[in-house]
Amino acid sequence: MKLLAKTLRRIKPIDNRVRQSVRLRLDRLAIPRRSLGRLEEFAESIAGIKGVKNPVLRNKYIFTMAGDHGVAEEGVSAFPQGVTEQMVYNFIKGNASINVLARHVGARVIVVDMGVKSDIRPGKGLVIKKVGYGTRNMAKGPAMTKDEAIKSIENGIEVLEEELALRRIDIVGAGDMGIANTTPSSAIIAAITGEEAKKVTGRGTGISDTKLNHKVKVIERALDINSPDPEDPIDVLSKVGGYEIGGIAGLVLGCAAHRIPVVIDGLISAAGSLIAYELNNTVQGYLFASHKSKEAGQQVALERMGLAHILDLDMRLGEGTGAALAISLLEASVKILNEVASFDKAKVTKRKV
Amino acid sequence: MKLLAKTLRRIKPIDNRVRQSVRLRLDRLAIPRRSLGRLEEFAESIAGIKGVKNPVLRNKYIFTMAGDHGVAEEGVSAFPQGVTEQMVYNFIKGNASINVLARHVGARVIVVDMGVKSDIRPGKGLVIKKVGYGTRNMAKGPAMTKDEAIKSIENGIEVLEEELALRRIDIVGAGDMGIANTTPSSAIIAAITGEEAKKVTGRGTGISDTKLNHKVKVIERALDINSPDPEDPIDVLSKVGGYEIGGIAGLVLGCAAHRIPVVIDGLISAAGSLIAYELNNTVQGYLFASHKSKEAGQQVALERMGLAHILDLDMRLGEGTGAALAISLLEASVKILNEVASFDKAKVTKRKV
Repeated sequence: MKLLAKTLRRIKPIDNRVRQSVRLRLDRLAIPRRSLGRLEEFAESIAGIKGVKNPVLRNKYIFTMAGDHGVAEEGVSAFPQGVTEQMVYNFIKGNASINVLARHVGARVIVVDMGVKSDIRPGKGLVIKKVGYGTRNMAKGPAMTKDEAIKSIENGIEVLEEELALRRIDIVGAGDMGIANTTPSSAIIAAITGEEAKKVTGRGTGISDTKLNHKVKVIERALDINSPDPEDPIDVLSKVGGYEIGGIAGLVLGCAAHRIPVVIDGLISAAGSLIAYELNNTVQGYLFASHKSKEAGQQVALERMGLAHILDLDMRLGEGTGAALAISLLEASVKILNEVASFDKAKVTKRKV
Repeated sequence: MKLLAKTLRRIKPIDNRVRQSVRLRLDRLAIPRRSLGRLEEFAESIAGIKGVKNPVLRNKYIFTMAGDHGVAEEGVSAFPQGVTEQMVYNFIKGNASINVLARHVGARVIVVDMGVKSDIRPGKGLVIKKVGYGTRNMAKGPAMTKDEAIKSIENGIEVLEEELALRRIDIVGAGDMGIANTTPSSAIIAAITGEEAKKVTGRGTGISDTKLNHKVKVIERALDINSPDPEDPIDVLSKVGGYEIGGIAGLVLGCAAHRIPVVIDGLISAAGSLIAYELNNTVQGYLFASHKSKEAGQQVALERMGLAHILDLDMRLGEGTGAALAISLLEASVKILNEVASFDKAKVTKRKV
């Protein structure tokens, strides 16, 4: 609890003075005013987050948090639970989608075992922060204890801070892996926003209509049995959450505390970010929504946080894949700020009117 | 006319057999089926375009076509005409937005003088393909002769083929520079689609309401005086077009003929692509729409061609900036195809159901 409390206290609003000065500088670039649209806004925000006028996004990270879920036994996923572990090894070998996209944008992938059911053999880029060997089945009772929920958040903060002790981190993408984890994510979003389970639940890895109806019922049962307190995000996380979701919440809080922009991926990442946001609304200024997931609950969470997605490519994979793609656009935005010549420097005539 | 006719004859539909086999391969990747959404579709299309199962997008190009416009004297732009030339020098020096974004995605910028009003001094990455020293004022008569229109298209084809003689080109982005060139672009789109000038005309570099009304009237007058034949794209281009717009049309035709994917940027690039599309509908399969411009006419042109934009970032700069960003996403899509492990290779269990 000490680390969580300390981190929450450390989070300060972004620097609006720097943001404004960057806005003025963007208006002097040799382009029609604001013609680079949201790209200019991204650069402003990143400058405000970092509190520097020439922010650079060189050291890019994707943290892919993995965990297993007791609720998988309810048959809510199209894949067997063992796939979580198998995919973690696939990440370590560098052969998964997130590895490919992270390489493409020049980002490093850190895979975190937050609570996979089995022990994962040590490997490159793997960090063990296991809170437990999979959560308990939330359809029958709380997914974890309150202490475990706090520990999952603090482990997420620790992962960031331990990496930060070794290297500079300029931007972070928050990814996930965990068979059945769209189920707790939708439950968290329903619990916090008060939306109906049906509205925030999707097909995850690709289940049928029948299975989708069943999944909605499982979520409704979990919410009914556990009655999570919407005003208490730790209560929500412990009752209907997951270890990797708590880890993402911690990662987001840690990034905000250390003034690092953090990029949300899909539904699970949005649910984790929402826990962080409910703990401290100020994290909003540090968040970017990489893409619009096919999972409808993600948009509900983004709306709650007042975030607009950057990409809309019908993706629903997770792992941090959407975050990786958006990070490259955010990097482009600061390069515009730092490298495009001004009207004066380029000797280009300013507008007549 | 010979080069244009030869190029048009050379354009063949994309290879659907290869496309289908790539679709099947994507379905074997260790990800939930189709969970990478449009990214997977991009990879399929690119494979079909190139006719190879493992397409690579290494050599990336942005062709930024520049030209001046007689209609600038009607006061339709927020910037004086001399800015076209000034920006061309800015491109050559590597300090403009397109240079920054092209560097970011690893693309080479080729600047083409298709018809700037002044003579441009030779410089790095500059190609001179001047058709004339700016077009004539289309509000008073045809912007150019029919021969000039054909020459502008053929010069666009030549630029591509001359570069292709030196190096392999894997993908092309079509950019533009030319003060007042949203005016002819909107006029082309209105002429071809039959939409009202008002619906396809925007603020360009950022004009006021009064100037926007004036710009619409100028376009209406140009269409009225010249009565371009909507069934004859060369007639449309000659009467209400521009040299760089013809250059883009040629570039698109050349790319389709050489089986190179070509990425549309904003309004001007869409207008040039539309000319190419009207000359030969088969180019559609080779085109990607990088982004949704703030200029409404661009969407009208994209709809006519049956293309859906990739990015929506409120951009309206031109130069090829949107194309550069999208090229990186397209490159990501083929890396997914080539580098992500299959279920078998990754030893990941396939779905249960």
